[in-house]
Amino acid sequence: MPVTLNTADPEFERRFSELLSAKREDSVDVNDAVAAIIADLRARGDAVLCELTSKFDRLDLTPDRLRFTADEIAEETAKVSPEDRSALALAAERIRAYHARQMPENVSWTDPEGATLGWRWSPVSAAGLYVPGGQAAYPSSVLMNAIPARVAGVERLMICVPTPDGVINPLVLLAAQISGVDEVYRIGGAQAVAAMAYGTETIRPVDKITGPGNAFVAAAKRQVFGRVGIDMIAGPSEVLVIAEGAQNPDWLAMDLLAQAEHDADAQSILITTDTALGHAVAGAVDRILPTLPRAGIAGASWRDYGTIIFVRNLEEAAALSNRIAPEHLELCVDDPEALAGKCVHAGAIFLGAHTPEAIGDYVSGPNHVLPTARSARFSSGLSVLDFLKRTTLARLTPGALAAIGPTAIRLANAEGLQAHGASVDLRLAELNERTGE
Amino acid sequence: MPVTLNTADPEFERRFSELLSAKREDSVDVNDAVAAIIADLRARGDAVLCELTSKFDRLDLTPDRLRFTADEIAEETAKVSPEDRSALALAAERIRAYHARQMPENVSWTDPEGATLGWRWSPVSAAGLYVPGGQAAYPSSVLMNAIPARVAGVERLMICVPTPDGVINPLVLLAAQISGVDEVYRIGGAQAVAAMAYGTETIRPVDKITGPGNAFVAAAKRQVFGRVGIDMIAGPSEVLVIAEGAQNPDWLAMDLLAQAEHDADAQSILITTDTALGHAVAGAVDRILPTLPRAGIAGASWRDYGTIIFVRNLEEAAALSNRIAPEHLELCVDDPEALAGKCVHAGAIFLGAHTPEAIGDYVSGPNHVLPTARSARFSSGLSVLDFLKRTTLARLTPGALAAIGPTAIRLANAEGLQAHGASVDLRLAELNERTGE
Repeated sequence: MPVTLNTADPEFERRFSELLSAKREDSVDVNDAVAAIIADLRARGDAVLCELTSKFDRLDLTPDRLRFTADEIAEETAKVSPEDRSALALAAERIRAYHARQMPENVSWTDPEGATLGWRWSPVSAAGLYVPGGQAAYPSSVLMNAIPARVAGVERLMICVPTPDGVINPLVLLAAQISGVDEVYRIGGAQAVAAMAYGTETIRPVDKITGPGNAFVAAAKRQVFGRVGIDMIAGPSEVLVIAEGAQNPDWLAMDLLAQAEHDADAQSILITTDTALGHAVAGAVDRILPTLPRAGIAGASWRDYGTIIFVRNLEEAAALSNRIAPEHLELCVDDPEALAGKCVHAGAIFLGAHTPEAIGDYVSGPNHVLPTARSARFSSGLSVLDFLKRTTLARLTPGALAAIGPTAIRLANAEGLQAHGASVDLRLAELNERTGE
Repeated sequence: MPVTLNTADPEFERRFSELLSAKREDSVDVNDAVAAIIADLRARGDAVLCELTSKFDRLDLTPDRLRFTADEIAEETAKVSPEDRSALALAAERIRAYHARQMPENVSWTDPEGATLGWRWSPVSAAGLYVPGGQAAYPSSVLMNAIPARVAGVERLMICVPTPDGVINPLVLLAAQISGVDEVYRIGGAQAVAAMAYGTETIRPVDKITGPGNAFVAAAKRQVFGRVGIDMIAGPSEVLVIAEGAQNPDWLAMDLLAQAEHDADAQSILITTDTALGHAVAGAVDRILPTLPRAGIAGASWRDYGTIIFVRNLEEAAALSNRIAPEHLELCVDDPEALAGKCVHAGAIFLGAHTPEAIGDYVSGPNHVLPTARSARFSSGLSVLDFLKRTTLARLTPGALAAIGPTAIRLANAEGLQAHGASVDLRLAELNERTGE
């Protein structure tokens, strides 16, 4: 049995607060090491990329070998089975269709004073996606990062993916190809982030960097933020399942374990109104766990962070969910729409027993890059908007300036910014002359 | 004459690159001092706020005096003249009307497979606005930060504003009142940011922090980012004016000086196709400058960072503008709409000779909190979206799961995440049983 809490317990509030504030990740301080790598990359460019790739990935490269050639990509992607190829293509198509609906409209109107106002969206010119190497090289993450960028209209899209010992996952390259990525580089770590932000002799810099990575990648993204845009600093993944009585305990147990198998730091929480169901799910987890290929990881996550919370009703469940602000929220209840309406802080909601979270990781269409560690209180999953920016527009007729200009002058003077006021006043003076006032 | 560049000059590219990469701000490293303040605030709460307010603002407070009372606010705001009050109210109304149009729609649709997909926007629950004290306490900034939050539906809105020697600008309190701010605290610096992020005995924490500040405030925002959301790290302000021949040089000179009077680190750039106009503007700046109350600041900015660039045509102007990615872009040309279409990286565009930038600082309606230091390449001005977050929604029918589930299973297995696949497979197995397959 994992940690269990019960809202009827007088100690509940204290224990729930502990759950909320528990840190699941060791915060290794790599800031100084990362700052040194960035400075070195800025000074010596490609040479640093080659040296560090040799050191960390045991791969000796010359600058002309940093980028995958079209032939190399063709050779690797040819290894992918037709079934995997179709699966990736279907997933890409559904992700593209979902994100295409996110494209915002440009807006313009003229107000009664004669001011034409509005805004206009435009894509960033170039984006770089970081893809972790080795075990965590997920082709689905390539689709989830690259497709929104392409839908937004990003002109140049590049990927950095480390290839330890020269090994690349062919599905990652195929996903890049299907998503329309222009350039793929076999580099990783803080040096790859620095290369994307500042450029080198062979790599042109980008304007926006997205994608997950280890502590070095996360620290590098935080340090280059401002020079370029970044998506977010993602923490370990988490799921919250809210269930009423009449649910299949095996399904819920597998959903909790699917989250747990990501990472020993992942967290799976079940909130249920039904004591019997809670115990049945706990039993099912224990029964299924040993059968999983990733039993070690999933078992550690469930042991350290797995939690079952018993509540008296769904109102309580929604209130706790809002305090957790989960990355993934599964609502296995009779009326999931009604409950979803009360769960206002969540990255992604999966409604009903036939929408397991795993479907959202691959094929339902919404993005799987989502806010973790309670940040769904204030942030959103990756979307087309992350690759767009908005320019506001204003055009005043002389009449509009006459109508609202005096207000600007008054406020400018109140703030002690007389040149601001004078820039309006000079124009008003001319208008008054013209109209003979 | 300030720095002048000419695209016809063979040295132009080198000199323009220097202009782009010039740093206008001393980057003082206050990270360690700020980290210590945040740690102290988390440990000792209100006591730290009182101690540091005494130290930096020469104001002795007890915890019950941190917050302005309703009586204190009424007493201060009563000092505002009716004219200033009306001006603030008109500005607030126009800002509110503009931002109300930014409210995005919730979207939902059902695809042919039977998956109901969409997303939903919801406000952050609580937001905190930092307002610098002293000279830089701008009531207009209170409106620009608070109104979008209120339009978004933020439930609890608070302000921190330092009051050196106990002095507050009554217009700041009035702007807070007009915008519907719930709580105003007389604290500032990194400790105020920490209090908003972590809370104290008397201050409840918020989910999002916006607003400008000095190096300490900026470093504190960067450090609490992730615990809470932040808007952006703003640098010194800048304007780019693009002008053709038939423009009034005094108007353009005053627009350049309006930017320069903000801050000695501010930057004003004129790009013109007309050599005579460029020289006339430079002359007008020299003539007007000594007449300004803030001549010292504006003069330092113009001397150190003021730039006039002569170009052969507007195509060149647009291309340079896109490399500068200015915060404010004024288009004083015959067809500003056509030129605006080519200027794709800019925070805010002001079209035509009767739309001076200062109008946008106060009353046109768009936000004046805008991306600086070339970050308009990848980011946008403050908007209602900064106070909202998006939750994605998905609900599959059994038929939809049957249609797309197998693809998820295949990709999950390809990624080595078997519990992910099994969570779909268990459900498909039951469906197959039910349909007797």
